[in-house]
Amino acid sequence: MEVYFDNSSTTKPLGTVIDEVAFGMKEFYGNPSSLHNLGLKSERKLKECREILSKTINSSENEIHFNSGGSEGNNSVLKGILKSGTHFITTPFEHASILNTIKKLEDNNIKVTFLKINEDGSIDLNHLRNSITKETVLVSIMHINNEIGVIQDLKTIGEIIKESSSRAKFHVDAVQSYGKIPIDVKKMNIDFLTVSAHKFHGPKGVGFIYIRKPNTLIPLIEGGSQEFGLRAGTQNIPGIMGMSLASKIVNDKINENYKKVSGIKKKFIEKLRSIENIRINSLLNESFSPYILNVSFKGIKGEVLLHFLEEAGVYVSTGSACSSREREKIGGSYVLKALGLTQDEISGGIRFSFSDDNKEEEVDYVMDNLNKGINFLRRKK
Amino acid sequence: MEVYFDNSSTTKPLGTVIDEVAFGMKEFYGNPSSLHNLGLKSERKLKECREILSKTINSSENEIHFNSGGSEGNNSVLKGILKSGTHFITTPFEHASILNTIKKLEDNNIKVTFLKINEDGSIDLNHLRNSITKETVLVSIMHINNEIGVIQDLKTIGEIIKESSSRAKFHVDAVQSYGKIPIDVKKMNIDFLTVSAHKFHGPKGVGFIYIRKPNTLIPLIEGGSQEFGLRAGTQNIPGIMGMSLASKIVNDKINENYKKVSGIKKKFIEKLRSIENIRINSLLNESFSPYILNVSFKGIKGEVLLHFLEEAGVYVSTGSACSSREREKIGGSYVLKALGLTQDEISGGIRFSFSDDNKEEEVDYVMDNLNKGINFLRRKK
Repeated sequence: MEVYFDNSSTTKPLGTVIDEVAFGMKEFYGNPSSLHNLGLKSERKLKECREILSKTINSSENEIHFNSGGSEGNNSVLKGILKSGTHFITTPFEHASILNTIKKLEDNNIKVTFLKINEDGSIDLNHLRNSITKETVLVSIMHINNEIGVIQDLKTIGEIIKESSSRAKFHVDAVQSYGKIPIDVKKMNIDFLTVSAHKFHGPKGVGFIYIRKPNTLIPLIEGGSQEFGLRAGTQNIPGIMGMSLASKIVNDKINENYKKVSGIKKKFIEKLRSIENIRINSLLNESFSPYILNVSFKGIKGEVLLHFLEEAGVYVSTGSACSSREREKIGGSYVLKALGLTQDEISGGIRFSFSDDNKEEEVDYVMDNLNKGINFLRRKK
Repeated sequence: MEVYFDNSSTTKPLGTVIDEVAFGMKEFYGNPSSLHNLGLKSERKLKECREILSKTINSSENEIHFNSGGSEGNNSVLKGILKSGTHFITTPFEHASILNTIKKLEDNNIKVTFLKINEDGSIDLNHLRNSITKETVLVSIMHINNEIGVIQDLKTIGEIIKESSSRAKFHVDAVQSYGKIPIDVKKMNIDFLTVSAHKFHGPKGVGFIYIRKPNTLIPLIEGGSQEFGLRAGTQNIPGIMGMSLASKIVNDKINENYKKVSGIKKKFIEKLRSIENIRINSLLNESFSPYILNVSFKGIKGEVLLHFLEEAGVYVSTGSACSSREREKIGGSYVLKALGLTQDEISGGIRFSFSDDNKEEEVDYVMDNLNKGINFLRRKK
């Protein structure tokens, strides 16, 4: 048996999405910037895709800007907005594409505030309110944290930002939430939103950023006037078509999938009660995504348990795939560290991440092997 | 009948490449940064692709860095190398992703020299030699010009740069030449090379840059440690697999394709002799790519002729797809302008660009319609 519980790293593309990409490569090969029919045909298809995607977040179609994915999206917004002398607010447990970008930006006279995190993983809203100054130009918050699944209250955060400043813009890294929990950029007062297709059964190497009009940014990739002048380069139409189809499918079933995956997480947490010395880092309530279950197995190295499970065909993660090398250096996840966990809890952290592909029965198989692994590894010490 | 003579804008992906992308989406969906088997399987496949590509340019596999295509590649090199106070040398007829990037960089105290172009389209090598100073950190040259097809002598250019400076690096935009004429990064002394897959029957949205070791650059996209720390973001494995297969196919047939396409261009030029008041901007000799034939039809607006041909199913271009909007503003191609053509010649410019998909018979059909179009449009005036 194989169980793929690493859906936050990447998801398996849907069969229909694979067919759509192949269809796009065959039928829409014209360059959308070409002036002839084949170009127009591609341009029209891009417009259709923009429409599909814009509806899912309640934006206009010309606010959707295609790119190569989440890391590019996050870099685009930060590097496209933050200039010398400005102030930026974020959290200490954003994705590597935010945190590592900031490290470079701080050298350029950009002041950064890292918000305090409450024990439950929510950001300290008073700290946010008190941190916004005249120099604040951008607040960047991950909607669903990629390692523990905590959901931030975007509506309240958006309100606080707009009440406190007419200058500060609100960027949301929605890579782990898009297609999983509803997003309304208008109601949530979001100015920029980053999305990546391969996190919701779409193709790799494609994503989009929503840029609220009349906001704009300095392009990360300059050249041709593609994407309303904000992202140069021939658009990856087949990838965009695949992303749009995957988006339609997951958004149409957003509630159904939420319930299904909640059932898996609930069952998993109940079964975990039989294991001693663990810490559930992703609670079973509305403040946490049902798609992510992070657990610390004390006295065990997460990576060792990961490889034990792998032998049984169970695929999990110790945290964000993009930060896997960093975790080796610091002995565990910086996200768990930011939450104030002990070193034992940090180094024993495992992320199980689900999708609608998964089944409740798979939990039984994973639990069997988890029990074996934990008994073996704890006995060994 | 349909004739696609716009292959420099983009090519039709090969059927086997489409299958390979679909296969990659199905079988290699694991995130290469994941620590489990599925991740390793993807990581191994990436290594295989790097090997295939590195052999085509005589580099090492760890000098191949995957990205989203040509515009990103050009932006990466320029923005990753050029710092305040440095000097940069290029030509006035580079791709938009070079020229528009420079416009922004010039504001940051970066001095730019645009090399003089000889009448035949080659760069003035003495001007290059005399322009290199202690502050010169980068020279960026397009191997095959995307609009007229002139081939620059990279070996001599590489020698001049290395003789004149130990500091200056050599970047080649090989988007129009890769897979069409041989490239040897060692023999040509190239430090950075930009390649885009969709120009050689590969997928859109994927490409690579060669970065000669131990050279490095500041990443355009920061975050995870993918691509040896130089380009963050989950790799687009299926796209990379498609690119690698396309690369293998075109490079294996590089001489055969060159001959085939040369035959098409030769026949076309011979037939064009029957039309008066034209200027052939891409000669039939070894200094020009056989894949590109740029012709000025005097007294006719290129775009009008383009739409006339389109009615007959003949797809051509007035220049680079990425600069199509810019041409509207300035009344024609900046490349033809840089070559010193008259306004009449510039506004009547048409680029026919071929691939090994094309057949000599197609030239007859295009000529018939070209004759009709020219007679109609010239009579009309």
